[in-house]
Amino acid sequence: MSIIIFLLVFIYPSYSYYSEDEDCRVRPPSPDHPNIVILMIDDLGYGDIASYGHPTQEFTQLDRMASEGTRFTQAYSADSMCSPSRAGFITGRLPIRLGVTGGRRVFVPKDIGGLPKTEITMAEMLKDAGYVTGMVGKWHLGINENNSSDGAHLPSRRGFDHVGINLPFTNVWQCDTTREFYELGADPNLCFLYDGDEIVQQPMKFEHMTVNLVNDWKRFLKNRMTEDQSERPFFFYFSFPQVHSTQFASARFRGSSVRGIYGDSINEMSWAVGEVLDSLMNAGIAENTLVILMSDHGPHVELCLNGGSTAGLKGGKSNSYEGGFRIPFIAWQPGTVKPNRVSHEVISSMDLFPTFQTLQPQCIFTRPANPSDGIDIINELRGVTQEDEEGTYGKLRPIIYYCNSNLMAIRMGDYKVHYKTSPIFLNTSIDPNLDYFCPNGKPKSDWYVSQICPDEQLQKHYPPLVFDLIRDPYEQYPLQNTVKSQEIRFEATKILSAHKSSLVKVPSMLGHFNESVIPCCNPPLCSCDKLQHRQPPGVIPITSDNFDKTEYLLVQRFF
Amino acid sequence: MSIIIFLLVFIYPSYSYYSEDEDCRVRPPSPDHPNIVILMIDDLGYGDIASYGHPTQEFTQLDRMASEGTRFTQAYSADSMCSPSRAGFITGRLPIRLGVTGGRRVFVPKDIGGLPKTEITMAEMLKDAGYVTGMVGKWHLGINENNSSDGAHLPSRRGFDHVGINLPFTNVWQCDTTREFYELGADPNLCFLYDGDEIVQQPMKFEHMTVNLVNDWKRFLKNRMTEDQSERPFFFYFSFPQVHSTQFASARFRGSSVRGIYGDSINEMSWAVGEVLDSLMNAGIAENTLVILMSDHGPHVELCLNGGSTAGLKGGKSNSYEGGFRIPFIAWQPGTVKPNRVSHEVISSMDLFPTFQTLQPQCIFTRPANPSDGIDIINELRGVTQEDEEGTYGKLRPIIYYCNSNLMAIRMGDYKVHYKTSPIFLNTSIDPNLDYFCPNGKPKSDWYVSQICPDEQLQKHYPPLVFDLIRDPYEQYPLQNTVKSQEIRFEATKILSAHKSSLVKVPSMLGHFNESVIPCCNPPLCSCDKLQHRQPPGVIPITSDNFDKTEYLLVQRFF
Repeated sequence: MSIIIFLLVFIYPSYSYYSEDEDCRVRPPSPDHPNIVILMIDDLGYGDIASYGHPTQEFTQLDRMASEGTRFTQAYSADSMCSPSRAGFITGRLPIRLGVTGGRRVFVPKDIGGLPKTEITMAEMLKDAGYVTGMVGKWHLGINENNSSDGAHLPSRRGFDHVGINLPFTNVWQCDTTREFYELGADPNLCFLYDGDEIVQQPMKFEHMTVNLVNDWKRFLKNRMTEDQSERPFFFYFSFPQVHSTQFASARFRGSSVRGIYGDSINEMSWAVGEVLDSLMNAGIAENTLVILMSDHGPHVELCLNGGSTAGLKGGKSNSYEGGFRIPFIAWQPGTVKPNRVSHEVISSMDLFPTFQTLQPQCIFTRPANPSDGIDIINELRGVTQEDEEGTYGKLRPIIYYCNSNLMAIRMGDYKVHYKTSPIFLNTSIDPNLDYFCPNGKPKSDWYVSQICPDEQLQKHYPPLVFDLIRDPYEQYPLQNTVKSQEIRFEATKILSAHKSSLVKVPSMLGHFNESVIPCCNPPLCSCDKLQHRQPPGVIPITSDNFDKTEYLLVQRFF
Repeated sequence: MSIIIFLLVFIYPSYSYYSEDEDCRVRPPSPDHPNIVILMIDDLGYGDIASYGHPTQEFTQLDRMASEGTRFTQAYSADSMCSPSRAGFITGRLPIRLGVTGGRRVFVPKDIGGLPKTEITMAEMLKDAGYVTGMVGKWHLGINENNSSDGAHLPSRRGFDHVGINLPFTNVWQCDTTREFYELGADPNLCFLYDGDEIVQQPMKFEHMTVNLVNDWKRFLKNRMTEDQSERPFFFYFSFPQVHSTQFASARFRGSSVRGIYGDSINEMSWAVGEVLDSLMNAGIAENTLVILMSDHGPHVELCLNGGSTAGLKGGKSNSYEGGFRIPFIAWQPGTVKPNRVSHEVISSMDLFPTFQTLQPQCIFTRPANPSDGIDIINELRGVTQEDEEGTYGKLRPIIYYCNSNLMAIRMGDYKVHYKTSPIFLNTSIDPNLDYFCPNGKPKSDWYVSQICPDEQLQKHYPPLVFDLIRDPYEQYPLQNTVKSQEIRFEATKILSAHKSSLVKVPSMLGHFNESVIPCCNPPLCSCDKLQHRQPPGVIPITSDNFDKTEYLLVQRFF
């Protein structure tokens, strides 16, 4: 393991430039220059699907996608909370560099900040490279800046040409419409749905949400096929509201899972994933389309049986153990990404930006982008890399674990060094809070042992804990304080010293609150439902009449 | 869920009789009347292989077997320790009925007892049905009764026509020849290898053990093929010494796994599994052969990084949480058992005896067998069952969890009721003993938090803990004491009352010690190595010269 490689990748800026370069913009989609679809799942745990070992979750379209593609066992998110993780994914840069720190650690509706305009998003970069861009679903990178409808931070301002049904904030606990989890019923100040830049449902409803998202995708695809798909590739970001709290499932999926509402929610989302894959196959462009499915971070384990599984990895959402950062990650491109493959390569969601950028070799961009914390992983996605003789994964760049602006840990190759840890939910032992919060496994409220990582809550480790993640993926047995662990810590110090010196002080984008920027439909009512009779053209909506349960899952109980 | 079904299956004796019925004995092997091969792995954890979700274990022949066959996510062993589990498997009956209780909970070399002769083994039953029977590997159901060489309890006395290299006891910690784990070196009183009924190596050596076992299997198969395979089916019990402590790997597999010696041991065993499957394919009889791969119980988690993974299931070997009883279980029969399938059906190792018995419909046995605790699961193995409308697994018979003679818990359908629990190794939290026992993840000794479950150590639960294993496979959230949980406990009481009334008091077979029955080669030396130059006829042994590492694993580091 060489520090030189780390430093080269890590502190060396990889400039990109926006341009009007014509050679770049007229490249048609092909297996080597594919359309790109990102399927981002919210809060899905490493161990939540059958392919990753869940013992009872139904075998779904996600498992079909894994069997037709490659699933990764050591993929990482950029952060363990939604907004910073998504900011990192979409820019290829650590949230600390973006100022996506502070406040509640995530954007809330009264935040006036958003993803900084000084940063270039994946959509902006690909749009400039000639891609037609689109998105539906959860955004969570800012909404308004000055009033309740300026939409200063919405996806349409960040490179997305076509924005369908979307959640500019997220689907939170207080959006529960069943009153089973949140007794007061949906809070309109937290729960609103947009269509493009327009607020269309407040509070939002879940019954037709997934089918509406799928239909918007199908409309986008249909337009692409009837217009210039043969000449221009597309980039689509399908960002699911599932399986964030509050979990939901429409009537046709409710009761479909033996796991209860959490599994129902996975099944509904999986059905949509199947629709996306099938529509690409049916359009005859699957071989020209790289599809990536991933979670934004670990599962919210404090929600008990509504909170997902890490398959035994320690911790979960909001902390810096593997359960917080390790994500399910599946790549799919028939003919290019190897089928039915499991890869142990260490990859990061921040690798996708530089990877997709490298797929545009003809482009000379004119607007400089900022240095990436990711690396090009196209060979890892396609499975054409060779095993390293040294037998060390993830040696091309480190994985750095932050909690807000606290540097918690670093992974280099096989080793992880913890400087600080948050208290975690002891999910296999007796915790006195468990029964209080989780009678019968049902959460009584939405809570975190740790979310914003205040200094007084953090456990500091002197000397830092060192784990071998390959032999000890569950972070059970810290190495003893020997020469070997000292060497590992010394190397970590060198890398982090370079990392810290590469950090530029940026303003915190979170925690600048102004109640007047909270979205409001039909002011001052803040109530509407413009989706009631929405019937997308050319798409037959699924109803309980024409819906066959056996179609949406490859299996119900077994297959 | 009906108590009637439980009771019918559970207390109704299913008599079998030994006979000389000619129709029975001349039935040739076919897909419906297959040869049977059992691949029993020792101490392999539910989460130890890639298909069951291990994040770093190499993809091996076990995963190949899973992709060509069906893997079960809710398969159970008969017990959570070796001897009672194997006694239950081979007779189809709970160890408490067999008297395989008491003493050290497992047979040790100075035990004079063994599996009772009043019981019929799977080999005896199948032999009487016309099968040619054979075995190699670990036995652990008794050795001698009166002196050091009478072999009263050996496999040759329990229905096995052909017994190759075998470990009448087991591969224990004190057999470590590297002195890395057991400083004193191999103890001859615990570590001996047999060939048939004859002791041939004392202390036993590991370097060529696996290849010797494979070669004995190949010799058996070759004989079958050149004799009367077209007329008579065979039953072969391949019982691996892996991955029990002390783990071992021969030179060619040492260092093959990123997990260290535990993974090396899995890789060596997996290679042997591949050899078995390939030899059946090459002989052209794969479609006529049902192969079952299973573990005898959960992993010995107290051995730290040498102790396997439960994939997050609670507990491990020796206790009654799911981590102790839930096992990896794969069925394989090309053309009959569905490929690349995952089944959530609840099955037990004790189901195999009645299942194999039912495959001999022509047989009218004359010697009565005792009632089984298992049921016929041929439809579940083949995947021809239909999902039950009620959506409840495992309702055909309960799973009963004993620790020695303590009744600990019962699973009925989706629910499990714990009356007593043993303390467990808290494998995802900080235990003060961890560092003492596991510096750097390496065990300092062979220990159990709980093995024989003495009364003073057990935690009693009033009211009993009730878990929904489908929604809560990790046994984290006991149901609250409501009407529903009371009903479940009431039903459990009814089933267990019937169960208890079906128990007949039998003598304990364990704990009757006599030092003079300990096997001894070349007395009084108790030392020999008759295998030194063993070269099985017609089989080319693998050596470091002709061995290609890339052949034994489908992959080394990824896919």
